[in-house]
Amino acid sequence: MNYKIDNLQYCNWSREIFEINREAELDAVHVTVVYHEDYDELLKRVDEWNIYFKDNSDLIFHGKSYKDIKKAKEQKRTAIFFGFQNCSPIEDDINLVEKVHHLGCKFMQLTYNNQSLLATGCYEKIDSGVTNFGKEVIKEMNRVGIVIDMSHSAEKSTFDAIEISEKPIAITHANPLFWYKAIRNKSNELLKTLADSGGMIGLSLYPHHLKDGSNCNLENFCEMIAKTAELIGVKNIGIGSDLCLKQPDTIVEWMRNGTWTKTKNYGEGSKNKPGFPKQPAWFEDARGFKNLETGLKKIGFNQDEVEGILGNNWYNFYKNI
Amino acid sequence: MNYKIDNLQYCNWSREIFEINREAELDAVHVTVVYHEDYDELLKRVDEWNIYFKDNSDLIFHGKSYKDIKKAKEQKRTAIFFGFQNCSPIEDDINLVEKVHHLGCKFMQLTYNNQSLLATGCYEKIDSGVTNFGKEVIKEMNRVGIVIDMSHSAEKSTFDAIEISEKPIAITHANPLFWYKAIRNKSNELLKTLADSGGMIGLSLYPHHLKDGSNCNLENFCEMIAKTAELIGVKNIGIGSDLCLKQPDTIVEWMRNGTWTKTKNYGEGSKNKPGFPKQPAWFEDARGFKNLETGLKKIGFNQDEVEGILGNNWYNFYKNI
Repeated sequence: MNYKIDNLQYCNWSREIFEINREAELDAVHVTVVYHEDYDELLKRVDEWNIYFKDNSDLIFHGKSYKDIKKAKEQKRTAIFFGFQNCSPIEDDINLVEKVHHLGCKFMQLTYNNQSLLATGCYEKIDSGVTNFGKEVIKEMNRVGIVIDMSHSAEKSTFDAIEISEKPIAITHANPLFWYKAIRNKSNELLKTLADSGGMIGLSLYPHHLKDGSNCNLENFCEMIAKTAELIGVKNIGIGSDLCLKQPDTIVEWMRNGTWTKTKNYGEGSKNKPGFPKQPAWFEDARGFKNLETGLKKIGFNQDEVEGILGNNWYNFYKNI
Repeated sequence: MNYKIDNLQYCNWSREIFEINREAELDAVHVTVVYHEDYDELLKRVDEWNIYFKDNSDLIFHGKSYKDIKKAKEQKRTAIFFGFQNCSPIEDDINLVEKVHHLGCKFMQLTYNNQSLLATGCYEKIDSGVTNFGKEVIKEMNRVGIVIDMSHSAEKSTFDAIEISEKPIAITHANPLFWYKAIRNKSNELLKTLADSGGMIGLSLYPHHLKDGSNCNLENFCEMIAKTAELIGVKNIGIGSDLCLKQPDTIVEWMRNGTWTKTKNYGEGSKNKPGFPKQPAWFEDARGFKNLETGLKKIGFNQDEVEGILGNNWYNFYKNI
């Protein structure tokens, strides 16, 4: 069976978006449940999701195991897997790792852009790697079954996480640095080490990670995928679109600034372009998976490879965790 | 007027200990209010202190300004100044800096032994210095008037803090590395930079920071002070005894392990010596200040210098913040 998986979305959720994801035939989506929320605030986000699940049970349900991806496909619904873009819900307490897993957490970034208690974010000047607490948390995430996600982490921290983790890790949403030099994109060496250890990279459609930004064209994006596949093998590549549909610009401001600064930090944006960037015309939402399919075939990937990139590779990764 | 100040105690507080501190003629004590507590837990600790203040108003009161040190001396009471040994009460929220200041916080360590959101602790392998959030918090601590305390921080982080802070910082409880090689003790270069910037070192009487530990003798300790005074000048030296009177060993276990590990970390101790070490016979509690006075005179300090070390230097530091 073939599956379509988008391994990162953080939309302003509504029935309309769940319908779009169904139209795109997504069998599973890894959604960001929290950025900077602590444990109590996470509980509120989970409550909100429980209402989404109840009100849209014909379209979505809470995914808890890889088997739910098959179930979703059979039922023409989308399995929603929970993830965190920061480790703030576990606060400074290793015992909360098991608790967030019970709440359904499947992916957790060790850092967002800044230093966390676990590791260094990609926007810090110096990267000291995985911390004492970080080493303990990685062990605990391995034990309970939460995937370590290093999308927003700095490079040494990511190498450390790959080495320390007994299970493959993921970079759920980023692109290769060789294609576009963004702080969030990843070096060849890192991508090779990731793939060699069984890890996955979810390629991102977020304009700040794309060559030519919002004007990035499909051919160029697919060429990048072809080169990445040459570099690390096709089996370790998936999609993590980083779609932020219908989010107001106040949200990207909060994502970047949280409560850590009294001045304004523009992250990947700038003073003149502080808001969410416009998606490329061929990937305005998940229905762009169709265009990706066309583009990937055109660039020379065979059917099997295309299906791998658009979902089966993530499916196999889920199966092994 | 001369003042006696102990700039770090974390005792299992009781009327008996407040009496001992009065017997020692301490006009002010900087007490550790929290280690790993978050903001809500801090509120509980402050409530507990308000009960101590109410029940022992003949012995102690809550110190809020340097003027309270004079008031304490005149009233034969001890002014209690609040401090934190970790930045956990401000969580990830810069707005909490002003709030903890309102609660009476006068000193805050940017880290305990591990990496914090602000800087690196002395027990981490790699020290990346003050973080993005840390830079913002230092500015805010400067603004509201909380002293940056780097006693448990790693070296580069401490150099960074001195450089970034517009006000002098403190190392409230540690000793020089030249005297005893403990992870918590500080290098000559760091102590000189600290003093050159107007900062203070509070010399510690905690056996794990002492040459010969619990058997350290008074002469040896005073010799160390004399050498330190030669190195950095006598005006920047005070006492931060780190007394933990009547604390059960479960407390030192919690100080070291907090909730960050499922295994046991022994910090400065070891598997065979996991508990609080025994104080040297000449400094079993703050009444040892008398012995220090004798020892400092014997080693050659004049009256003025002795009074500086035992309190006036800290008084002047408080006055300037």
